[in-house]
Formats: sequence, C-alpha cells, structure tokens
Amino acid sequence: MPQFLNTADTDFESRFAAFLTTKREDAPDVDAAVAAIIADVRKRGDASVTELTERFDRLALTPDTLAFSEAEIDAECARVPEAERRALEQAAERIRAYHVRQMPEDAQWTDPEGAVLGWRWTPVAAAGLYVPGGLASYPSSVLMNAIPARVAGVERLVVTVPTPDGVVNPLVLLAARIAGVDTVYRIGGAQAIAALAYGTQTIAPVDKITGPGNAYVAAAKRRVFGKVGIDMIAGPSEILVIADADNDPDWIAVDLLSQAEHDESAQSILITPDAAFGQAVAEAVEKRLETLERRAIAGPSWRDFGAVITVRDLDEAAALSDRIAPEHLELCVADTDALSAKIRHAGAIFLGKWTPEAIGDYVGGPNHVLPTARSARFSSGLSVLDFLKRTTLARMSPGALAAIGPAAETLAKSESLEAHGLSVRARLDRLNEETS
Amino acid sequence: MPQFLNTADTDFESRFAAFLTTKREDAPDVDAAVAAIIADVRKRGDASVTELTERFDRLALTPDTLAFSEAEIDAECARVPEAERRALEQAAERIRAYHVRQMPEDAQWTDPEGAVLGWRWTPVAAAGLYVPGGLASYPSSVLMNAIPARVAGVERLVVTVPTPDGVVNPLVLLAARIAGVDTVYRIGGAQAIAALAYGTQTIAPVDKITGPGNAYVAAAKRRVFGKVGIDMIAGPSEILVIADADNDPDWIAVDLLSQAEHDESAQSILITPDAAFGQAVAEAVEKRLETLERRAIAGPSWRDFGAVITVRDLDEAAALSDRIAPEHLELCVADTDALSAKIRHAGAIFLGKWTPEAIGDYVGGPNHVLPTARSARFSSGLSVLDFLKRTTLARMSPGALAAIGPAAETLAKSESLEAHGLSVRARLDRLNEETS
Repeated sequence: MPQFLNTADTDFESRFAAFLTTKREDAPDVDAAVAAIIADVRKRGDASVTELTERFDRLALTPDTLAFSEAEIDAECARVPEAERRALEQAAERIRAYHVRQMPEDAQWTDPEGAVLGWRWTPVAAAGLYVPGGLASYPSSVLMNAIPARVAGVERLVVTVPTPDGVVNPLVLLAARIAGVDTVYRIGGAQAIAALAYGTQTIAPVDKITGPGNAYVAAAKRRVFGKVGIDMIAGPSEILVIADADNDPDWIAVDLLSQAEHDESAQSILITPDAAFGQAVAEAVEKRLETLERRAIAGPSWRDFGAVITVRDLDEAAALSDRIAPEHLELCVADTDALSAKIRHAGAIFLGKWTPEAIGDYVGGPNHVLPTARSARFSSGLSVLDFLKRTTLARMSPGALAAIGPAAETLAKSESLEAHGLSVRARLDRLNEETS
Repeated sequence: MPQFLNTADTDFESRFAAFLTTKREDAPDVDAAVAAIIADVRKRGDASVTELTERFDRLALTPDTLAFSEAEIDAECARVPEAERRALEQAAERIRAYHVRQMPEDAQWTDPEGAVLGWRWTPVAAAGLYVPGGLASYPSSVLMNAIPARVAGVERLVVTVPTPDGVVNPLVLLAARIAGVDTVYRIGGAQAIAALAYGTQTIAPVDKITGPGNAYVAAAKRRVFGKVGIDMIAGPSEILVIADADNDPDWIAVDLLSQAEHDESAQSILITPDAAFGQAVAEAVEKRLETLERRAIAGPSWRDFGAVITVRDLDEAAALSDRIAPEHLELCVADTDALSAKIRHAGAIFLGKWTPEAIGDYVGGPNHVLPTARSARFSSGLSVLDFLKRTTLARMSPGALAAIGPAAETLAKSESLEAHGLSVRARLDRLNEETS
C-alpha cells in the first residue's frame, strides 16, 4: 500500500522527512570492476572491447563489425512499421523546434573604461550517446539526446547500444538515423563508456558522453568525468501530481502509473487538498493495476514508494513539492499558472489536465532527460547547452589597462603572485613612458 | 629547459602528441581516506568536523565557533590596507557588471498545434564555496565564486576556508563580505565538503558546491556529486600565448611566468611564427627567473612543462591551440579578431598585447575559474548559469493533445510502456466523446 500522509496529522513532519530520505535503490558497488574494465580498454583498445562484448553480450565482434553498417541500418529501419516511423518523425520535429530556441546568444560590449568584453559559444566537436540495451532501449531517448547535440552543432555524433545475443531494437536505429547520428556501435556497459572517453583503434574518442545506463555505466561515467564531459547520473524516474478534486481519478491514476511502470524503484506521488479525491485515485490505481501489462513492476513501485499526501491548501502543496524537487510535476488544478509560479525546484512542469506527463516523454518538445533524486534543486534537464561551451573574451585598450591595471597589480601583490603583477606593471610602465 | 618544437621538424607530430599527453600531476589516491571522512561527518556531524579540524588544522573549535562571528570578521577586515580594499571593491564591481549580463531569459511561446511551451530559470537555494587555506587562499577566488552566485539570486551563500593554526587571510574575509557571503566557516578538506553536502547540527546543507581545493577536496567533490551539484574539478593552471615578432619578449615572458608561478605543475606555452622571437622570449624568461620571488615554483614549471612552438603561420597556431584547448589563451598578433575567429576550444581569450592574462585573474570582469587539462573542449568557465537551473514548461490544449497525442501513444506502445499510452488515450477518448 502506498503511504497516506496528511499535513494535518501531528506526526506529518517526521513521516514526510522519513519519506523524503527513503532509499529507493541499492546501487551495487561495481566501482572496482568498472575501474578494471576502463584500464583494460585503455590498454588494449578494440581487443578489450570485443572480448568484453563477447563475455557480457554473447556477441562476437571484430573491429570491422563494431559499428552497424549503413546496409544493416537500412535493413533494420525497413522493418519499422509506417505508423511508428511517422510518430518518430513527428516527435523529432517537435523536439528540434523546441531545442532550437535554446541556442544561446554570443555577446560583446565595450565598457565605460574602454575594455571590450564578451563571450561566445561553440559546440563540442564530438559527442557519444549511450543507449541501454534490452527492456530500456528507448528510441525516444535517442531523439532526446541526439537532437540537442545536432542543434548545438556537434560535428561527430555517435551512439553506443549493446545488442545482447545480437538482438537490436530497429526503432533505436531508425531514431538514430532520423536524429542524424553518424555511427552506431553495438557495444555497451563500462567498456562502451571507456571506448568513448579514451578511444580505441576503431572508435575515435569523444568530448562529451550523455545517456542513461545501469550501475556499471553510471560508475564508468563518474570515473571518466573530467577526461570528457558527462551529463547527470540518472536515477529511477519520479512523478509528482498536484491535483484538486476537479479531476477524473482514473486520469491521475494512469499518470502516476506511467512512472511507476518504468522501474520498481520509480516513485509516484499525489498531493491533493481533498483527502477523498486522494482515496479515489488510490482506488483507481489499484483497479488499473489489475490489468496493466507491467503490473509486476508498477505494483511494487506504487506500493513501496508511492504516496498520497493530503494538504490544507495549494500553498502547502507547492512548499512540499519544492522539498521533493520532482523530476516530473503535473499541475492539475484550476489556476495552474498561479500554482506554477510558486514552484521553484522541478525538472519539468506539465500544466493542466490535458498535459499528461507521457506527452513530455515523446512529443511535447522539451527534453525528457531530467534531474532525478531531488537534483532538480541544482540541475536542469538535458539541453542544447550541454553540447556547447562558452569562451570568455576580453580586450583592454591602453586606457582601460591604465584604469584597472593598478587594482590588478595591488591584488596580485596581496596574493604574493609577483609575476601576475609584473605582467601588468611592464605595460603600465610603457604607457607612462609614452605619455611623459 | 622548456621544450622547443617546430612544426617544420619531421618528428613534430610525435613530439607534440607526447607533449599533449604529458602527465603533470600525480594525483595521490586519497579516495578511501575521503570516503571514511565523509561517512564520519554524515554519522557524527559537528563532532566529526571539529575533531578532524583539530587533527588536520591544529585548531580547536566548538559548534559555536565553527563560523566566524560578525565581530571577528569586522576585526579582520579592519586590518586590510585601504589600497587593497579599494582594489577588491573595484574588482567586485567589474565582475558583477560582467556576470549580470549572463542572466538567461525565460521563454514561453505557443506552437502551431496550440501547445504552450517554454522554460524558466530559478536559482539554487543555497551554495557553498570552498576556499583553500594557506598559500592558495586567494581573495580573488572568493569574488569569482561568490559574485555569480549572488547575481543568480542564491539565497544562502556560505564559504568554508581552513585556517591552519588559526591563521586566516583577512582579505579572504573582506572579499566574502564585499561579495555578500552570509557565513564563513573555518573548516576545510574533505570534512568541509561533507558538511556542505550533508549538513551537520550547525551547518545547513547546501545544494551546490564550487571552488578549488587539494586532492582531498577534489575527491570529496567527486564523491558528493549527485547529492549536490559541483563545479568542475580544477587541475593546475595553464596559459598559451600566441605571439608574433612584433611584441616585447619580456612582456610575453612575464605573461608565461604569471601561470608558471602558480604551481610546479602549471604549464606555459608560447606559439610563434618566428623562431628567433621564441628564443628571445625563452631568454627573457630565464632573465626574469633570476629574480622572481616565486622562482622556486615558476622555474620547475617552465623547465618541466613549458614549451616554445614555432609554426609556419597563424592558421597552424590556431589548429595547435585547439588541440591544447588551453585554459587561458593570449593572442598577441596584429589581427587578433581574425585569429580569435579560428579558435574553438579555450576557456578565456585575452585579445591584444594590452591584455595580460593577469587582468582576467582579478579585474577584467570575466570569471577566472576556467576549464583546465583540455576540458575547454567540453566545458566552460564558472558563470551565473552554474547557480541556476531550468524548469521546462508544457501545456497542451485539447487541440494540441488531439494533434500530437496519437504519436505519443504509438511510441509508448512501441516501448512497451502501456500506462504511458493509457494516460494519453484516456484523454483522447474523452475528447472524442465530447466531439461526437
């Protein structure tokens, strides 16, 4: 049974605090194994990657077959039914249209002292997108990772996707093609992350790695962070729905289940000002769970980590929501804008009852790679910015140097960095000579 | 002696490749020690932090004296000479003026299907800035970390700075005050990072930790990444100067030394189209090293990791620069804009001979916290964005849902995520009922 909490209960604060810190995932400690895999790939390159792929994925590859050929991709793409192809294309178009608007502006200005200041953005040269194999091999994730990279202007864009026993999801290859991925390697695990970060004889290294993965992939990303850029380490999915009684309990129930079905560690929470409505939603969840295909996953998720929280009013709901800092937040209330304005920490907000979270997973436009495990307090969903970096620019005129150089010299001396000061002083002395 | 390379030499490519991969720092493996410290701080809070501070900094604190009192800060600030106070204030004002321009815009629009899409930026609630103790306790770093946080709108801003044997740099406290820091804790090392990330009885946890530190601090930041946000893991400083023969060799020499003096592992590189000029700069460096206060640091840095690279032309210089991806890049050539336009990977560019890098360390305006160790390929200097996060927004109208919902349903089915599809289908069915 999910937890039923009520802010009016005297033990609410302690129960909510305990709820917030409930550990949902026992991440196995695979760090030593991952360190060994990375070291081996760095040392032996392709030979290591192919051996590990044979061991973990039961797939014999050679350097020539690490990547899918164009003909193989053609053949797989041809297997995709027309409706799915059209849906992927519609999704890609909408995701692209949203992300194009994220392109930041360069800037340049001259300040009152005559210094020209500014910055400019440039794309990373090469990016690698990790796509999980098996059940969680989602074509939508390929779009969500690859399209922002392409919009940013990344030149070389590769995907790694493990194909255990050689089984591949044709939709993943089609999504990669639609998104403009250059090469798809049929490798996975820590060995794929190592190959992307350090390169092998066949696989050129990339500058940035994004995409979700299992504990091995997460540990490997953490280890190569610094050598390359990485995106966040994603945890199990979460949804928080704030809904008043003017909603169909069944709609809210399926919305909650749409995250619960991802993973037994996923978390679905309803906050409502109406306890009876909360009860009705919980009943609707149970009813849906009777027939849901993934009830063996969604059921434990809902019962172990789900919650229905009754609040006095929507201000309380907003405050609790910020403490949860949910990955996905649905606002199903009369005045969604007023409630939204009170929310500060959330990865994505879905406004109004016609916006189920699943729209955002596929075709809404915003990215579905979002901060989990309360990290919306300090991080954002994937965006074009993740594939760009900023170079700052500064040009002093002689006048600007005369105006601000002395302060730099003073501070350099105070930090005992003599050469810093001398580099300014040498120029100031020249200016003084010239003007005297 | 620094390396002298020339792109015209037949062995240039192999020598340059070896130069690029030279390991400058042997990071000691302190991960196990750091893990134990973090676990202890999580378990015992203040008691752990004070014990570790007594052990490592020879300083006995109580929970009441973990933070400097206002009176203590007043007293320390009063010791700062007027010239240094004015220099700090001028620096702070210029840094603030630059960073204010980085504030990103929120966005909202209605797309052709009638969906309202957008995003908004919000600050993290609390940030902690790590300031090293001892020699590298730089007030300029306090400004560079704290001011972007304040500009972003961070509400609670704290500093940790170790004070071994109770010794504090008054300029660090003054910089913290000028930048608007709320609290300064006299703690350091992994225990400070653990206290910031997890909180203790006295120290409330923060959401984001930035600032440089030693191997223990770096390992601790890596470990708490995910629980809180962190900035980059900074390595030893670097400068690349591209200069033609129309420069004073001594100016370029002190510019190179201004990074070399930071750290024996720092790296200073000159690229020039004129071999004789390169030789002249190398001689000027040696001359300056005879008297430089920090010659015991700058000398080994220059001799072990410095380089003078002669190129055929500035196009070659730009290409090599991008392979180095320098933290700091000075362009001292006739047409700096033309050369700058060819550069893609650099943390900060200093344009023209009146712009020594040291200006950027203190008073230029742009941030001096910049990507090192070739990470300018994929990351940016510290900015206001590091203290903000973006929430995406989506609102479907019934018409928009009718237009794009079916594609979402199709893709959900293809990913075997039934509840995702049902959450869309339930609403589409209602729309169909209403219109039939």
